[in-house]
Parts: sequence; C-alpha cells; structure tokens
Amino acid sequence: MVSANDPSLKSWVAIPADSDFPIQNLPFGIFKPKIGSSRVGVAIGNYVLDLQILQELGYFDSLHLSNRTVFSKPYLNDFIALDKPVWQAVRQHLSELLRHDNPKLRDNYAHKSQILLYDTDVTMQMPVKVGDYTDFYSSMEHASNVGSMFRDPANALLPNWKHLPVAYHGRASSIVVSGTDFHRPKGQIKPADAPSPIFGPTQQLDFELEMAFIIGKDTKLGENVPVEQAEDYIFGMVLFNDWSARDIQSWEYVPLGPFLGKNFASSISPWVVTLDALQPFKTSGPVQDPAVLPYLQYSSEKNYNVQLQVAIQPQKGTEKIICTSNSRYLYWNIFQQLAHHTVNGCNINIGDVFASGTISGPTPEEFGSMLELTWRGTKPLYLNDGSTRKFLQDYDSVIMRGFAQNNGVKIGFGEVRGKVLPAKE
Amino acid sequence: MVSANDPSLKSWVAIPADSDFPIQNLPFGIFKPKIGSSRVGVAIGNYVLDLQILQELGYFDSLHLSNRTVFSKPYLNDFIALDKPVWQAVRQHLSELLRHDNPKLRDNYAHKSQILLYDTDVTMQMPVKVGDYTDFYSSMEHASNVGSMFRDPANALLPNWKHLPVAYHGRASSIVVSGTDFHRPKGQIKPADAPSPIFGPTQQLDFELEMAFIIGKDTKLGENVPVEQAEDYIFGMVLFNDWSARDIQSWEYVPLGPFLGKNFASSISPWVVTLDALQPFKTSGPVQDPAVLPYLQYSSEKNYNVQLQVAIQPQKGTEKIICTSNSRYLYWNIFQQLAHHTVNGCNINIGDVFASGTISGPTPEEFGSMLELTWRGTKPLYLNDGSTRKFLQDYDSVIMRGFAQNNGVKIGFGEVRGKVLPAKE
Repeated sequence: MVSANDPSLKSWVAIPADSDFPIQNLPFGIFKPKIGSSRVGVAIGNYVLDLQILQELGYFDSLHLSNRTVFSKPYLNDFIALDKPVWQAVRQHLSELLRHDNPKLRDNYAHKSQILLYDTDVTMQMPVKVGDYTDFYSSMEHASNVGSMFRDPANALLPNWKHLPVAYHGRASSIVVSGTDFHRPKGQIKPADAPSPIFGPTQQLDFELEMAFIIGKDTKLGENVPVEQAEDYIFGMVLFNDWSARDIQSWEYVPLGPFLGKNFASSISPWVVTLDALQPFKTSGPVQDPAVLPYLQYSSEKNYNVQLQVAIQPQKGTEKIICTSNSRYLYWNIFQQLAHHTVNGCNINIGDVFASGTISGPTPEEFGSMLELTWRGTKPLYLNDGSTRKFLQDYDSVIMRGFAQNNGVKIGFGEVRGKVLPAKE
Repeated sequence: MVSANDPSLKSWVAIPADSDFPIQNLPFGIFKPKIGSSRVGVAIGNYVLDLQILQELGYFDSLHLSNRTVFSKPYLNDFIALDKPVWQAVRQHLSELLRHDNPKLRDNYAHKSQILLYDTDVTMQMPVKVGDYTDFYSSMEHASNVGSMFRDPANALLPNWKHLPVAYHGRASSIVVSGTDFHRPKGQIKPADAPSPIFGPTQQLDFELEMAFIIGKDTKLGENVPVEQAEDYIFGMVLFNDWSARDIQSWEYVPLGPFLGKNFASSISPWVVTLDALQPFKTSGPVQDPAVLPYLQYSSEKNYNVQLQVAIQPQKGTEKIICTSNSRYLYWNIFQQLAHHTVNGCNINIGDVFASGTISGPTPEEFGSMLELTWRGTKPLYLNDGSTRKFLQDYDSVIMRGFAQNNGVKIGFGEVRGKVLPAKE
C-alpha cells in the first residue's frame, strides 16, 4: 500500500501545478451543490469530490463504515465521530481511487460526471458545527509587539506568558465560513481626550492572521489529554481570521478579556486539512526557556511548517500581499495547547475550534495584524490603488492563504476571505 | 381566562405550603423517568408533569402545535423554538388543566398515574443544549469587593464598569446540571514567594452565586436586540454556580481573562422559571449614575426581586447557610446585558446561557463568594460541624437556592447543588 502522502503519487484528475489540493492533500469540507443539500466533499485540484454520491454508488462498501449516513450531513461532525482510523482509511481509500493507474472511477465516465464537481459550481459551507471556540495567544512575537505598544517594551511579556499558553474563550456562534461578509461593528469607544465613552462604528477594524485546529474526539468532564496523546484528538487544521475592533476591545477588555471587540465575526477556511496530510511538514518550534512544567513537555517535532500570507483588496483595485508569516513561529504548539486546555478536566467535543492567536514572525513584514504592521497606526500601509490604511476601510476584503511545501508536494489550505460592509444604520 | 400568575389559583395537586413550585410557577425542565428516555417536564409541588405523555394522550390537541415532537426531546431547545406565544399558551393550558376546579385530568385516575411522577422517581437533566455561554460581572458590590482586594480600595471599579456591562465568554461544554459532582481541578499556581509556578490541585476552590437567563429566540449575525425588545428573546432563568479556582485564575488571567480557573465546571439548576412566571416580581434596579449611553437606557422596572442563599454541607454534618443575597442588587439588568451583547451584531441562539456574575449585596453577609465572605481568607467561615473554611474542602457540597415571593405566592427555582470530589491522581 502506497502512503497517501507519497510525493510520487499522481492522480488521473487534471490538477494545476500550483494547486493547493493535489492527491497528497485530500482535505474534507462541506459543500452545497447547485441542486441538493449540503454534504461532505473532498477537494482535488479544481474539483470537489462528492462523498455522498460516492457512498451511494458503492465506492465505500469495502470500508464497512459503521454509520453510512455521515457523508450526507451538513457538518463533518458525524464523520469525525467515526474516529481517527476511519478518517485515515477514507483518505487512503480516496487516494487509491484517484491514483492515475486506477481505472475504477477514472474510466467510468457516467460516475465521474456525478462525483466530480467544478469548485465553481458549489458553495462551501461551515465545515463543522462548532461547540466551543478557544483562542490562544501563542506567538511570542505578537504578544511582545502588543505588550511593547500598550505596556512596556522592556517587559513586553507578562510573567505567565512563557509558563503557559495563555488563552480565552471566544464566541462560537459568530464563526463564519470564508466568503461571508459582515457589517462594521458598532460599540462603545473611549477617545483618550473624552471624559466618557461614545457610541459608533469601530474606527480601528483589524484582522488577525491565525490557524485553528478542529477537535476530533470527545473527552468527558474530568479527563485530560496528555501532550503526547493529543494528536489523536485533533482532526485537522484551517486558516482563521480573528477580526478585531481595537478601539472597542481596548475600552472593554479590563479585567475579563476581549468580548464585543471580537465576537461580531471570525472567519474560517472551508477545507479542513488533516493532521495526516500535514505529517511530512512537522518541524521544531522555538526553544522554550525557561523549561515548562512536565505536563507541557514534549518530545520530537511538534510544530508545522505552514507558510502564511495576508492580502488586502480594496473595493476598486487589485489585492496586495501585506504580510507573510509561518505557523512554525508559534512558541506553544497545538499539542501543548490541548494538553493545557484539558489539564483541569475541561471536556472537549468534536467540532470545537482552537485558534492559535495572531501568528507574527520576527521581522516587521511578518506581523500578523494591522495593529502591528502599522505599529498602532504610525506607519500606514500602501495598497495597490495608491490608497493607505491604518485600519480596514469599508469594502476592503481580507484574504488569507496558507500552504506547506517540500519534496515537490504542496499541501494548501485554500483561502479564508471576508469583506467589510459599512456599519448598519 | 384567569392569568396563570393569579395569586388566588389553586391546584388539585397537593402542594406543600412552602413549595417552590405552586401552580403559579410551572417551570420547564428535562427529566429522565425510571423507564424511558429524557423528555420535557413541568414541576408542580413534589411532582413532575410528563409533557410527552400529556401530548400522547391528546391533552395538547387544542393548541395545534406546529411541532408535536418537542416534548419528547432530551433538551428544551425545540420547544423553545416554537416561540414565546407558544410557551405562554402551553403554560396557560397547563395552569387550567391543573386548576382545582377542572375535573378533566383531576378525575382521570388512569391518566394521572401516567402523567404525574414523584420528583424522587426521576433524574433531572441539563434543561437545554447550550450553544454559547457568557458570564457577566454585573454586581457593583462584587466588582468593588474584588477591585478593593486585588487593586485599590479607593478606585475599586475600573473606568469602564459603570458604562457597560463587563462580560467574558465562558466554556459551554462544562456546564453541568445540579447534582453533578466534579473533581478538584489541577493547574498552574504561582505562590507569591516562588520564582516560578508549580503544578497541583487548586488550594482556593470557590463558588460564585449567580443567576443566568436562557436565550429563547435566535438572531442573525449583524442583528441587534434593543433593550426594550430583549424580553421577547429570553425564555427564562435558572440558578448558576460559577465554580472558580482562585489561585489558578489569578496566575493565568492577564491579559485575556479567566480560563482554566473557571472552565472545569459550572452548575445550573434544572428547572427554567419563565419570565412570565417572574413578571409579578419585577422591581427597580440601582440608579445608574453616570447616565448610560442611549442603547442601554430603559424604562419601567427591569430587575427581579429574587431572594438567594448559599449553604455549605461538609461530608459529615448538616448544611449551613453562609450567605443570602438578591438579584435586585444587580447594577446591570438582563435586558441591558442582552442589548449590549448584541449591539455589535453578535448573533445569539436558543439555549445560550448568559450568567449574571457573582451577585453580592451591600452587607458582608450578602457577599456571593468565599473570596469575599472570608475577605481573601482573612476571616474564616464557621460550619455546623465546628470546622472552618477559607475555601472549599474535598467532599463539601455547595447548595444554592432562590425564590421570589409576594401576595402569598412563592415562585422558586429549586436548587443547584454540587459536591467537590478529591483531585484525580
């Protein structure tokens, strides 16, 4: 059996050379075809593979799935609940079905026309029903930048930061799939020179470049997930834009953390790239000094080398890449995050979303938010239409992309995109 | 038609004089009978009314419900989704069915034996499937006490506190129903005199006396709920214990708020008392000075006069009431909380839980947490077995109760109870 990750694998599906979705990727998502209800799909090149129809046509019979309705559901949760050996078996099965030398589906033109849909003919949906959403704060560069700007450059990191992966609970209901536009939020803003707050649309709307992982296995209240077992509890990863209204946030956030400055919208990419597909891209993370407590210690490589970028496209004009970064910069890896989150017995559920926090790199071009890129508005960004930005304007689109690449294989995440609409009257 | 709130109403069900559940209350909950699956019930005296069987026997036929399966579900969400006019019609219908002068069910002994279960013969379940959970911080006395202890008595309230109802997102997955015991959580603790944190069971386990309301109507992303319309979006209220590990919390909470110090467990009472049943107990809240922004301004009485108490029962010994309080003390009322939460377009869903934050009153006997009652451990509490407490010990049970009372009618919440088990090995 050839591994689904083998760089030499080729598919009979025509795949553009720079595609995010070669046969080695096979990410899972939920799509809605032009006719019919939302269901499970897998991305391959510019196509979406319809797993509901594959199931109906008998292509999964040999897997003897215990639940044969999972591919007809509007969320991945029921598929994920079949557990990791099944995710792996389905991905391996699809890899074999799509291999250039397998005639079974390749030469069945009637079936192919039903099963392979152009990605432009479908509408991507939220991949999972999110139970709870947690946002970490795991980039040292980001935490240092924010600490320098708002507190003290000499003591940018708070005392707890290198001892535990700081995090807060976010709002699950307002996580939306890529392509969902939203209105500029309104809220309380306290101008520095005003005696009391005013109410109005945010003047400091920002993005945050993040990645997120999707929980793949439930725990019960009181259980914890050790760091070395955490990989079995994670289904896969997505791109994540934690939209932020800095002026609302800075007035409200003491002492209990971010609230309305964040919970108006968070955007998620539609294709969940499995940890299996990302396995060849594991890499070492930053050295953790001082040493962390035993429950956070880990062996081997636990970071992922995923290249990230953010572009802004104004209403009239082309997009401009305004920063690049990499998830390998994260000081706290996702397995430490999960171990920490559960060490007190907090239970997790399939479909929970755990985001990284803004992923900033060491150089100014690698900062993952406008707050940092413009250093609190003191260094405006220039866009392709000649306009400048301190923060986002109405009708700006923010597009985040990410991919891992080595040995000639590119495992991409597609994109997460959202446009700012004017505040409602 | 006699109002279901009429103080003169009497039921043919024998109801103890001090019962929380007279015919004027009729709270909804989810129970599991000895044989059969979880379903919707209504509390009346020491009985639980089985709404699934009532439906099957045709007692709701005259209501022409659009969804006749809602009473057979393991959560109230589907019933709540039928919307407020239906909640009111069902409660009114039950009120008439249970009236002392209505022979229909009263004199049908075969039906009564199927429909009325002793409360000791059922197991109460989580009343709703919780989507998102938010915890406010709306008691001025509590915020002032905490601010005095940890910051500065002269500036106990932070500058934003009187301008907006401060809140943070909590963990929905670990909300458990009354009677669910839990293990003392472990986590990072930073002793004041230690150079770095240690790991172990919390030494400062506390309760927080709160109430919570349950969302009764969805909104879409981008919509907001004006304060004067908020009542239509709330199904009812419960008691809420926001268990807190103070030592874990104080080390982790900067700058993003409470996390593992809270999310190991939160306990909820099983019976949801409708806002309709609480209508006669509306009262005025504290004067808000300075004036709040227009989106938070309200007319008429918007607080509720609900008397609250907390008791601690050690492993061997009787319970002792250690504090009493009242929800009327809340500076920010629930309608302001909901208006604020949605003013930025954050969407809400049926079953979401919005808790008040600790409800402390003005006198030391009315403080709603051990942190405040013992003033950071400097004034121990004495229990009935002669032992003292600064914080909770293993096998301590905490019992919270609440009721509203006037004109001879007592609308009770029952209780929310939980026991601390030792930390897991």
